[in-house]
Amino acid sequence: MAILLAFQSPELDVIGLTSTFGNVHTALATRNALHLCEVAGKDVPVAQGLLTTLRGAVNLGIADFVHGSDGLGHTNPPEPKQKPIDLSGPEFLVARVEEFPGEVTVVALGPLTNIAKALELDRDFPKKVREIFVLGGAFFVNGNINPAAEANIAGDPEAADIVLTCGANITVIGINITHQVMMTGREIEELGKCNSKFGKYLRNALQFYYDYHHEFYGVDAIYLHDPTTMVAAIDPSLLTYAEGVVRVQQEGICKGLTLFNSTKKKWAEPTEWCNKPPIKVAVTVDSDAVANLIKARLMAL
Amino acid sequence: MAILLAFQSPELDVIGLTSTFGNVHTALATRNALHLCEVAGKDVPVAQGLLTTLRGAVNLGIADFVHGSDGLGHTNPPEPKQKPIDLSGPEFLVARVEEFPGEVTVVALGPLTNIAKALELDRDFPKKVREIFVLGGAFFVNGNINPAAEANIAGDPEAADIVLTCGANITVIGINITHQVMMTGREIEELGKCNSKFGKYLRNALQFYYDYHHEFYGVDAIYLHDPTTMVAAIDPSLLTYAEGVVRVQQEGICKGLTLFNSTKKKWAEPTEWCNKPPIKVAVTVDSDAVANLIKARLMAL
Repeated sequence: MAILLAFQSPELDVIGLTSTFGNVHTALATRNALHLCEVAGKDVPVAQGLLTTLRGAVNLGIADFVHGSDGLGHTNPPEPKQKPIDLSGPEFLVARVEEFPGEVTVVALGPLTNIAKALELDRDFPKKVREIFVLGGAFFVNGNINPAAEANIAGDPEAADIVLTCGANITVIGINITHQVMMTGREIEELGKCNSKFGKYLRNALQFYYDYHHEFYGVDAIYLHDPTTMVAAIDPSLLTYAEGVVRVQQEGICKGLTLFNSTKKKWAEPTEWCNKPPIKVAVTVDSDAVANLIKARLMAL
Repeated sequence: MAILLAFQSPELDVIGLTSTFGNVHTALATRNALHLCEVAGKDVPVAQGLLTTLRGAVNLGIADFVHGSDGLGHTNPPEPKQKPIDLSGPEFLVARVEEFPGEVTVVALGPLTNIAKALELDRDFPKKVREIFVLGGAFFVNGNINPAAEANIAGDPEAADIVLTCGANITVIGINITHQVMMTGREIEELGKCNSKFGKYLRNALQFYYDYHHEFYGVDAIYLHDPTTMVAAIDPSLLTYAEGVVRVQQEGICKGLTLFNSTKKKWAEPTEWCNKPPIKVAVTVDSDAVANLIKARLMAL
């Protein structure tokens, strides 16, 4: 939804896609990215991201129960005709910000492995990238893979802590925000019936995701996590933000928890949040405006 | 304030005090408890608690900058005439719930070391105690010793996790609640000028605590953490509560963080919060009513 929304948004010029793991393994995500470009009729480069976490872990806790084993709701997509480019995801990120310093916005919708790797490849990446929008974290609310952690951050907590404290211009959209932006079962049906470019395609792909929400959350709706983050890149004024340092817990029962220091309190002793660069954390969202923008663009001809 | 408030409350029958560490070491807390009984003219047993954490740590991070090195705002209290009883704090707790099963309420205003030790001494303690009110934790807000952790829980995170999951009837009051209940600088002056039993005494003892708030929080007021928890025991209807499992992070940057599972979400895999007994966590407070009750009783003749 987020990728098709980006292609439908005149504010954005999509200069490439990078894949990562999460709901499926990276290789399948690459294939799905290529497939979606063909669905949209867009010829943009797709760079395959790392197959493991930043530190090489291969046990990735792939959440195939969210979008099905194919990552597209068991819609049996055809083999894409195009291939990924020769650059890896991190190499592609580094090359693009080098080519267009101060102009490239990254919308990160999965674990932050590729961006952390890009920081290793080019220490000036934070200065060269214009902005990074991150879908991740659960700020002052429970997580979604367990009560402490949100899936994207938990997918690679080490990469997340590195990226969120790297000094780049970063805006994070957590599930405290995205759980407020929904598409109802009825709206999914409407999407399928409208004569839009992607309506039928999305309606089919969303059935599995809808069933997941019904079973795990007991709601007659889907959460628009990734599209909401894309909307933040399209029109940041539809959300409000607080500034502060975010760190990620690395071990124990709260592994993957995002801890945002939102206080102005003076601490008796220096903390692990001191002397780190602040980022923007979304704290409110105009849910109706965001949901309506997403629906309007996905239902457009 | 909380101890004098308890003595001033007809709803409560104070059958003993146990000491613990936190703002001062346990031995000094014992002395201060004996002193306060003499100030109040009350002859109740004082049992000294453990001098270390449950697992024997002696580096306790004593926060003497909150109430001064004497724990009473540098008021130079006289040596108490009475002595602590021969039973330790945990032994006293076990003996009292054994003597009055289902009748004893514990109001825990420091690290949970003594209660965790009582659970080791008597595995049926959770069934025998009527209720435990705990001042501790920071639920969906930042902590007060660092952005993650609240001081009482951080004082002995292992004891806290054991107590909060022991199956007793527990109500926790975190700083998300107690930061809403304040006494202003002007009210502290009024307390000093009124002809109440404890007014002048408290006004003197509170000057240091007031200065701490001014410096660390920039407020012209003090937070009524401990008295608010005592009010919860006096009249629980002045707060509202949510039920769920609370676990305490044991290591890393978020050591001491209290993580409350407030969701009804179904998890794909069992979490560390599953199959643990729920407790009550205060989620709202009638701040005016609680603050007024505290002030009225401490200003009473």
